[in-house]
Amino acid sequence: MAVLSVCMNPALDREFYINDFKIDKLHRLSFEMSKMSPGGKAINVAIDLSSYGVKTIVTGFIGGYIGNIVLTELRKVSDLITTNFVHIDGETRENIAIIDETTHTFTEINSAGPRVPIEDIDHFLRRFSLIVSSADAVVISGSLPQGVPNQIYGDLTKIALKHGKKVFWETKDEIIQESLKISAPCILRPDFRKDKVLFGKELVTQEDYIDAGKELIKYGIKMVVLSYKIDYDIVVTQDGVWFLKPLVDVEHSHLLGTGDTYMAAMVYKCFKSDNLVDIAKYGYAAALAKTWYRAKVPPKLEDIEEAFEKFKIERVE
Amino acid sequence: MAVLSVCMNPALDREFYINDFKIDKLHRLSFEMSKMSPGGKAINVAIDLSSYGVKTIVTGFIGGYIGNIVLTELRKVSDLITTNFVHIDGETRENIAIIDETTHTFTEINSAGPRVPIEDIDHFLRRFSLIVSSADAVVISGSLPQGVPNQIYGDLTKIALKHGKKVFWETKDEIIQESLKISAPCILRPDFRKDKVLFGKELVTQEDYIDAGKELIKYGIKMVVLSYKIDYDIVVTQDGVWFLKPLVDVEHSHLLGTGDTYMAAMVYKCFKSDNLVDIAKYGYAAALAKTWYRAKVPPKLEDIEEAFEKFKIERVE
Repeated sequence: MAVLSVCMNPALDREFYINDFKIDKLHRLSFEMSKMSPGGKAINVAIDLSSYGVKTIVTGFIGGYIGNIVLTELRKVSDLITTNFVHIDGETRENIAIIDETTHTFTEINSAGPRVPIEDIDHFLRRFSLIVSSADAVVISGSLPQGVPNQIYGDLTKIALKHGKKVFWETKDEIIQESLKISAPCILRPDFRKDKVLFGKELVTQEDYIDAGKELIKYGIKMVVLSYKIDYDIVVTQDGVWFLKPLVDVEHSHLLGTGDTYMAAMVYKCFKSDNLVDIAKYGYAAALAKTWYRAKVPPKLEDIEEAFEKFKIERVE
Repeated sequence: MAVLSVCMNPALDREFYINDFKIDKLHRLSFEMSKMSPGGKAINVAIDLSSYGVKTIVTGFIGGYIGNIVLTELRKVSDLITTNFVHIDGETRENIAIIDETTHTFTEINSAGPRVPIEDIDHFLRRFSLIVSSADAVVISGSLPQGVPNQIYGDLTKIALKHGKKVFWETKDEIIQESLKISAPCILRPDFRKDKVLFGKELVTQEDYIDAGKELIKYGIKMVVLSYKIDYDIVVTQDGVWFLKPLVDVEHSHLLGTGDTYMAAMVYKCFKSDNLVDIAKYGYAAALAKTWYRAKVPPKLEDIEEAFEKFKIERVE
C-alpha cells in the first residue's frame, strides 16, 4: 500500500519557548527551547501514515534554505516517507510561533511563502502524472502557494481518477469550489479552521451543514465529513446522514493537528474497508485519540481502538 | 595580501520588518520584509576587507542548517572570501531582530549557539597552524561559543606570531585577560559594546581609559585603540597617547558595525604603512565614513579619504 500525498505549500514549523516575551527587548533562546518540524497539512498526513506503517510519497513545490531544512527533517522522520518535490527558486514558508508559557501568549510570524511560476506548475503536473500510478491513494491537502490556481485540486484529481486511484481532499472553500468544476474526490473534509464556509455561504445551523454536504455529494463525491461545533462531525454520503458525537470531554487545547490525523486514519482504513461510514468512524476515533496527547505525535493504533468506546454514531437521515 | 579572519562564533543575522508588531497576534511577513546576512564580528571584517580588494580566509566553527546558510551567503558576498571552517554537530547562532518602524521598537531573539566539544577545538588548532602560513595578517574578533576557553585568542596568537604574522584582536575583557596570559596581539581594540571594562574594572574617567591602555601595552601589545564616549577614541602605543575626535556630528543610530569597519580598515592600512598612529587614524576615518550610511555596507575608499577632513588627532602624552 502506498499513498501519494500532495503538499503544494509545505512549511517549516518553528516553536520558540520564551518566557516573559516582551517587545523592544533582547531574548536569549537556548537550543532546548527552540523546536522545528516539517509542516503543511499533507506532510502531517504523511507523517501520521508512516507511524501506521504506510508508505507515502510526498510531492509539491519546495525551495530555498527553508525548503532544504523541510526536506532533510521530513526524510529523518521515517524511511516510509519518500519525497518527490519540484524545486522552485523561492523560499518555502517558515512559520515561527513564540510561545510564552508564563503569560500564555502565542505570537506568530508566518512568512508569505514563494510564488510559483507557470513553468514549474507545468513541470509539477507532468511529474504528478508519472508518479500517481505508483500510489494506491492520493491525498491532496492544505493551502496553495501564490501563482497556483485554485482549480489545481481538480486537475490533479482528474489525472488520479484516470489511473483508478482513490482521492482525498482537505482544503478550504475557494479551492473546493473551483476544483469541483474539473473533478471530484472520493472523500472530502472541508477545512473549516479559518472560516466555516461552503459555496461562499457561512454555515451556522445544523441544517446548513447537512444541506452543504448534500450539495457536495451531487458533484460525485462519495463522502463528505464536516467538522461541526468543534468536536462533533456530520457525515454525508449518497445513502444518508450521520452524526458523530464524543461521549467524553474533549481537551480543546489539544485539537491542533487533529484534522490531519483524521485524514491519515481515513486513508489507512480505506485500505482495509470499503464501508464509507466505517472509514469516517475510524478517522473520528483517531482524531479523538490524538486529543489525549499534547505533543504533535500521531495516536497509536491501540489508542484509536480504545477511542471507539468514547463516541457514538447516530443516523439522522 | 591575504588575511586570516577567525570567527569562532559566526551567526546568521535576520531582520524581520513588521509594522505594528504585537504579542499574541499572527503577523504575515512578505519576502521583501525579511532579510538575512552572515554575521559575527570577524565575518563582518572579512566582508569589509573584500570590498577593499583584500583576500580573506574565514575560519572558526560552523554547524547545522544555520551554519550552512551562513556559509552559502558568505561565499556569495565576494570571490575574495574563502571559507575554511571546522564543521561541528551543533547549530550555528541565529540572531533574529524584529524591527517595527511604526512604534520604533527592536525586539531581538538570539539563539545560544552551539557547544563545541574538545575534539573539535583540537581539530581547529591543528587546522589553524596549517592555514596561518598562507596569510599576512590574522584578525581574531568576537565572542566564543560555549566550550571554547577564553585563552584561545592567546593560543592562536602564539602560533601566528611564531609564523611572523601581524595579529589583531577585538573582543571583550574576560577573553583579553585570559588570552594575554599566553600571548599578546600587535593591535587590540577592546569590545566595549556591552561593558566598558578592562582587567575587571569599569572604566569611567579619561584617566581610567589611559591607564588601562598603558597596562595593556605592558603585555607587549604595540597599540591599543579604546573607544571612548561613543565617538571619541583614545590610542595608546609604547610612544605616547593620542585622542581622536570628530569635527562633525556623528549619527549615533548608524554606529552598528562601525567597530568591524574600524578593524578592517586598520588591517588594510597595515599592509601600506608601519606607522601605528596612521593605522589608527585610517580605522577611525573608515568608522566615521561608515556612519554616513544607514545600510550594512562598508564605506568606499573615497569616503574614507574624505573622512580625514572630519576629525582631528591630539597628542596627550
